[in-house]
Amino acid sequence: MRGRYSGPEVVVRAAEIDEEFPVVDIDSPAVDAARMLGEHKLPGIVVLTADGQLYAVLPASQVVRFIVPSYMQEDPLLARVLAESVADRAVEALGGKTIRELLPQHQRTLPAADADDTIIEVATIMGRLRSPLIAVMKQGKLHGVITASRLLAVALKCGLIDNKRFRAASTSAAR
Amino acid sequence: MRGRYSGPEVVVRAAEIDEEFPVVDIDSPAVDAARMLGEHKLPGIVVLTADGQLYAVLPASQVVRFIVPSYMQEDPLLARVLAESVADRAVEALGGKTIRELLPQHQRTLPAADADDTIIEVATIMGRLRSPLIAVMKQGKLHGVITASRLLAVALKCGLIDNKRFRAASTSAAR
Repeated sequence: MRGRYSGPEVVVRAAEIDEEFPVVDIDSPAVDAARMLGEHKLPGIVVLTADGQLYAVLPASQVVRFIVPSYMQEDPLLARVLAESVADRAVEALGGKTIRELLPQHQRTLPAADADDTIIEVATIMGRLRSPLIAVMKQGKLHGVITASRLLAVALKCGLIDNKRFRAASTSAAR
Repeated sequence: MRGRYSGPEVVVRAAEIDEEFPVVDIDSPAVDAARMLGEHKLPGIVVLTADGQLYAVLPASQVVRFIVPSYMQEDPLLARVLAESVADRAVEALGGKTIRELLPQHQRTLPAADADDTIIEVATIMGRLRSPLIAVMKQGKLHGVITASRLLAVALKCGLIDNKRFRAASTSAAR
C-alpha cells in the first residue's frame, strides 16, 4: 500500500492493495489445490483456464467438502455413523480427479473485481458472495487477489473503519 | 499433530488437531474483530459470550460486509455509483457498534464440532455450512479451532487425501 493513504478521503483501488497468490489450473489434479491451500494456509484459491482466464475461486471450505463422499455430505448423520468404520480409512474422493471434475457444471457469479474498483465495491462483492477472497482482474487477466483479512487490514489502516460513531455522509448520495 | 498418524487407518479426532486462535467477546467493539482478523490474517473468528459459551463463528468475509452500509449491500450497483462520492469518505458502519449489534438476531447452525469428532465429521460440517473454521468444543467449552486449510493439511499428512483412485471401503458401510 502506498504512503498517500492518510485518511478515508483517499479512494483506494483494488489493484493497489491486491496481492500475489498461488493459482491452480482447472485441469490440474484436485489434490494440488488441497496441498496449496494446506501448505500456505490459504482461505481459498483461484482456478484459471489453460489460457489464463478466471474460471473459479475455490474457498478452502469447499475443497474440504471434496474429501467427503457425496453420500455423506447429503446425510450428516451418516458421517457420524460411518466415521470410524469407513470414512477415515478409505476416503479419497479427491484421488485422481482434476479440479474441473470436482467443480459444479453451472458457473456461479465469480467473486471478481475490476482493478479500478474501490475497496467498498470489493467489500460489497465479497460480502454478497460470502467469498474469502476476490480475484482482481485487469484487462481480462488476473492482477492479484484480495483476501477478506487483507481488506479489513487495509480498511483499518486507511481509516475506513474506526471507533467513532457512523457519520452521515456530508455529500449528496446521488451524483 | 502427534507422530502416530502414519496412515489413513488411524482415526484422527478434532481435539488432536485443533489450534489456539484469538476469540472475541460478543459485547466487545466490532472493530476489535476486524482488527484481529486483519492483523493475524485469520479466515474467521470465534465469538464467545461473557461466560465463555460459543455464540457464533464470524467468517472474515462477513465482517467485511459490515463495513458496507446495508443500503449498498442490497444494491450492488449503488456501491459502484456511490463509491467515490460517499462510501469511501464516510463509511464507518462498524463505528461504535458491538459485535452483538452486528450479528443476525436468529441463531444459525453453529459451525462447531465435538472434541471426539473425526476429521471426516469436521469436514462434513465445514463443507455443509461453508465455514472457513470450525470451533471444537469439549464439555461445553471451546477447546480450539480448525481452519479449512489446517484440515486439508492434516488430511494430506495422514493419508486421507492422496493421488490414487478412490478405493472402495473394505468394510461394510453399516455397523
